[in-house]
Amino acid sequence: MEIASMNNDEKPSNFFTKGLLWFKSLHEKIYTKIVGIAKQFKTIAKDDPRRVIHSLKVGLSLTLVSLFYYFQPLYNGFGVSTMWAIMTVVVVFEFSVGATLGKGLNRGMATLLAGALGVGAHYLASATGKVAEPILLGLFVFLQAFALTFIRFFPQVKARYDYGMLILILTFCLVSISGFRVDEIVDMAHKRISTILMGASVCVIVSIVICPVWAGEDLHKLVAQNMEKLGKFLEGFGDEIFKSSEDSTESKVTKTSLIEYKSVLNSKNSEETLANFAKWEPGHGQFKYRHPWKQYLKIGGLIRQCAYRIDALNAYINSEIKAPEEIREMIKETSMKMSIECGKALKELSKSMRKMNLPISADEHVTNAKNSAKKLNSLLKSRINNWEEINLLQVIPLATIASILTDIVICVEEIGQGVNELASLANFKTTKSSKEIINTNKVIVVEKIELSNNHVVITINEQNMKL
Amino acid sequence: MEIASMNNDEKPSNFFTKGLLWFKSLHEKIYTKIVGIAKQFKTIAKDDPRRVIHSLKVGLSLTLVSLFYYFQPLYNGFGVSTMWAIMTVVVVFEFSVGATLGKGLNRGMATLLAGALGVGAHYLASATGKVAEPILLGLFVFLQAFALTFIRFFPQVKARYDYGMLILILTFCLVSISGFRVDEIVDMAHKRISTILMGASVCVIVSIVICPVWAGEDLHKLVAQNMEKLGKFLEGFGDEIFKSSEDSTESKVTKTSLIEYKSVLNSKNSEETLANFAKWEPGHGQFKYRHPWKQYLKIGGLIRQCAYRIDALNAYINSEIKAPEEIREMIKETSMKMSIECGKALKELSKSMRKMNLPISADEHVTNAKNSAKKLNSLLKSRINNWEEINLLQVIPLATIASILTDIVICVEEIGQGVNELASLANFKTTKSSKEIINTNKVIVVEKIELSNNHVVITINEQNMKL
Repeated sequence: MEIASMNNDEKPSNFFTKGLLWFKSLHEKIYTKIVGIAKQFKTIAKDDPRRVIHSLKVGLSLTLVSLFYYFQPLYNGFGVSTMWAIMTVVVVFEFSVGATLGKGLNRGMATLLAGALGVGAHYLASATGKVAEPILLGLFVFLQAFALTFIRFFPQVKARYDYGMLILILTFCLVSISGFRVDEIVDMAHKRISTILMGASVCVIVSIVICPVWAGEDLHKLVAQNMEKLGKFLEGFGDEIFKSSEDSTESKVTKTSLIEYKSVLNSKNSEETLANFAKWEPGHGQFKYRHPWKQYLKIGGLIRQCAYRIDALNAYINSEIKAPEEIREMIKETSMKMSIECGKALKELSKSMRKMNLPISADEHVTNAKNSAKKLNSLLKSRINNWEEINLLQVIPLATIASILTDIVICVEEIGQGVNELASLANFKTTKSSKEIINTNKVIVVEKIELSNNHVVITINEQNMKL
Repeated sequence: MEIASMNNDEKPSNFFTKGLLWFKSLHEKIYTKIVGIAKQFKTIAKDDPRRVIHSLKVGLSLTLVSLFYYFQPLYNGFGVSTMWAIMTVVVVFEFSVGATLGKGLNRGMATLLAGALGVGAHYLASATGKVAEPILLGLFVFLQAFALTFIRFFPQVKARYDYGMLILILTFCLVSISGFRVDEIVDMAHKRISTILMGASVCVIVSIVICPVWAGEDLHKLVAQNMEKLGKFLEGFGDEIFKSSEDSTESKVTKTSLIEYKSVLNSKNSEETLANFAKWEPGHGQFKYRHPWKQYLKIGGLIRQCAYRIDALNAYINSEIKAPEEIREMIKETSMKMSIECGKALKELSKSMRKMNLPISADEHVTNAKNSAKKLNSLLKSRINNWEEINLLQVIPLATIASILTDIVICVEEIGQGVNELASLANFKTTKSSKEIINTNKVIVVEKIELSNNHVVITINEQNMKL
C-alpha cells in the first residue's frame, strides 16, 4: 500500500518532469533548426546578394500590380481580369532579364495567337449547329493539345518556346470552349490581353530598371571564371607535383584551392540555359544585341574537354614520384613549364575575356608550352646513358603526367583559338600594350626560357621587321 | 525606239517569269522545310515512342476536363471556376508520373495553404478599417512575395517544392487582395479548390493508368545504360588499340560505336532531375515506394568519374604505337586484359542491375583486371634485357594507356561496390546461378587466364571448402 501510494504520489511529478524534459528537448530542437535555417539564409544571400534584390523586386512588382485592385477606376475597367496581371507577374518574373523577357514575350505572343485561333475555332464550331458544336470543339481541343504537346519535344522549341507552347494550349482551350457568345469573348479577350500585357510590362520594366541581372553577362563571367579555375589548377599543379616530400605540410593547404576545377566538369547545363536566356536580351553594357553567344558554348565545350584531362591529371597529384634523379629532373623542368605556361595562358585568356580586350600574351604562353613539349620529346628521344638503373614502373607516372600535359597543351591552344574567334566576332578592343606590339613592327624572338624560384624568365630579342 | 519598245514588250513576260521562278523557289523552299520538319517529327517519335503516347494523353485529359463546359449541370455548379481545372491540367501534366504527381501535390497543397492564409490576411486587414486595409494588404503581399521568392533559392526547396512556392505566392495574392466580402471568398475558394483538385486528379489518373512513364524506371535504366556504354568502350578499346595497322579499314566502323560513352560525361543533370521526380512516385513494378534513389546518384557519379578517364584514354585511340616489339607485347597482353575485363565487369554490372539480380561474376572480372594490373607492374619492375633499343618517347603512349587503365580498374571496382550497396539496399534477387556458387561450398581458384581469338579463356580449379 505504501509503495502504491508512493507511486501514486510520484506519478504526477514524474509525468511533469518528463513533460518538462520533452518540452525542453523540443524547444532545443526547434531552436537548432531555426538557427540552421537562419545560417542557410545568410549563406545563400552572401553567395549572391542579387538574390535578395531579386526577391525585393518580385515583392515590389506584385505590390505595384495589386494597386489595380485598390484604385476603384482601374478595377471598374478590368474587373476580375485584374487577376491575370497578378498571375503574369508571379509566373513571368525570373531571375535574369533574359529569362523574364523570354517568358514575357512567349506569354504575350502565345496569348495573342491562341486568342485569335480560339475565337476562330469557337466561331466555326458555333456555326455548325447545336449538336455538332461540342463534338467539333472537343476535336479541336484534342488535336491542338496533341500537336502542340508533341512539338514541345523538339529541342529547338524546348529551349526557347516551351513556355509559349504551354500558354498556347491553355489560352486556346479557355477561349474556344468558354460558353460565351462571340462578342462577349472579344470583350473578355481584350480585357485579359491588356491585363497580361500590363503585368508583363511591369515585370520587364522592374527587371531591367532596378539592378538588372543579365544572363549574357553571367554567361560571359562564367566562361571566363571556368578558364581561370583551370588556369589556377595548372599553375598550382606545376608547383605542386614535383615538390619534394619535405614541404608536404604546406602543400595540403594549397591543394584545397586546386579542386575548384571540379565544378567546370558539370557546367554544360548552366551554360546552355544562360545562352538561351541571353539571346532574348537587348544590348547591355559591352554586349550588343546579337552578341555571338553561341561561341561561348563552343569555348565552354573546349574548356570542359580540358577539364576532363585535368581530372585525369589530378589522380597523380598525391602519387609519390620515385623515378631516378636524372629522368626526374629531365621531365620535371619541361613538365613544370608546360603546366605553368598553360595555366598562364588560360589566366591571360580569362583576364582578356573579362575585360573584352584582345588577348596579348596568351599565344606566347601557348607557344612556350608547345616548345617545352617539343623539348621534352627531343630529350626523351636522345637516349640516356645509364639505362640500367631505370625500371619502367618508376618512369610510368612521370610519363603519364607528361603525356596528359601534352594533350592539355593542345586543348589550351584550341581554347585560345576559340577566344580569338570570339574576339573577332564581338570586336574586342585592342589595348594599348597590344597596339604597341602591333605598331612597333618588331619581331620578338624568344631566346631563352628559364625557371628560377617558381618564376619563368623569358629572355627575348627584338628585331625590326623587314617587310 | 525599237529597243525601247522591245524592252517594254519583254518587261511583263520577264516580270511574269521572275515571279514564276520566285514562286517556284518559294514553293520548293517551303516543301523542303515541311519535309525537314516531318522528318524531325519522325525521328523524335521514333527515338522515344512514349512521346506520342504522352501527347495523346494530354489531349485526352484536356478533352475530359473540357466536358465540364458541355454538361450544363456541371457548368452550373462551378461556373467560370471550371477554367481552373483546364489550367491545372495544362500546367500539371508532365511526361513522367513522378513529375505529374509532384506538381499536382505541390499545386494542391499550396492552394489549400495559401487559400487559408489569404482568407486570414484578408479578414485581418478588413478588421482594421477602410484606411489601413489597403496599406496592410500591400504590406502582406510584399512581405510574403519577398520571403517566398527568397526561399525558392534554397537548393532543397528548388529541387522539390519550387512549383508549390510559386502557387503559394500566386494564390495568396489572388485571395487576399480580391475585393470580395469574406463569405464570397470562402465560396470562391471552395469552387476553385474543388476544380483544381478535379483537374489534378484527372492528370494523375490518366498519367498512371494509361501507359505510365515512371521516372524511377527511367533513372534505373539510364544508370544501367551508362554503365553498358562504358563497358562497350572498354571492350572495344581492348580490341582496337593494339590492332596492327593492316586491319585499320574495318576499325573505323567499330570506332563510331565507341564514342557512345560521350553522352555519359554530361549525364549529371538528367540523373538528378529523374531522381527528384522518382521520389514522388508510389511503388511500381520492381521498385518499392522508398527505393534508394539516392544510391543511383552515387553510382552515377562514380560512372562519370570513370567516363572522364575514358575520355583521356580515347585521345590515344588514333595514335600509332611504335614501341619495340618486346615491350609492346609485354604491355599489350596485360593492358588488353585489363580493358576487356573492366568492360566485362561493367557490362555484367549493367545486366544484373537491369534484371535486379545480385551481380555474380562482376567481382571476378574486377579481380582479373586487378591481377593483370599487378602482373603488368611486376613485368615492368623486372628489367628488360635489351634496353639499348628502347627510347622513352616510344614507350610513353603505351605507359600512359597502361596507367590510365590502372585508374579505370579502380573506378570500376568502386562502381561495383556501389552496385553491391544498391543491391543490398534494394534487396536484389539472388539468381539460380549465384545461389549455386554460394551453395556448393567450393572455392574456385583461377589457375590460368589466356587470350585466344578475342576470347578470354579462364581455367579454373574447384576445391571443396574446408571450414
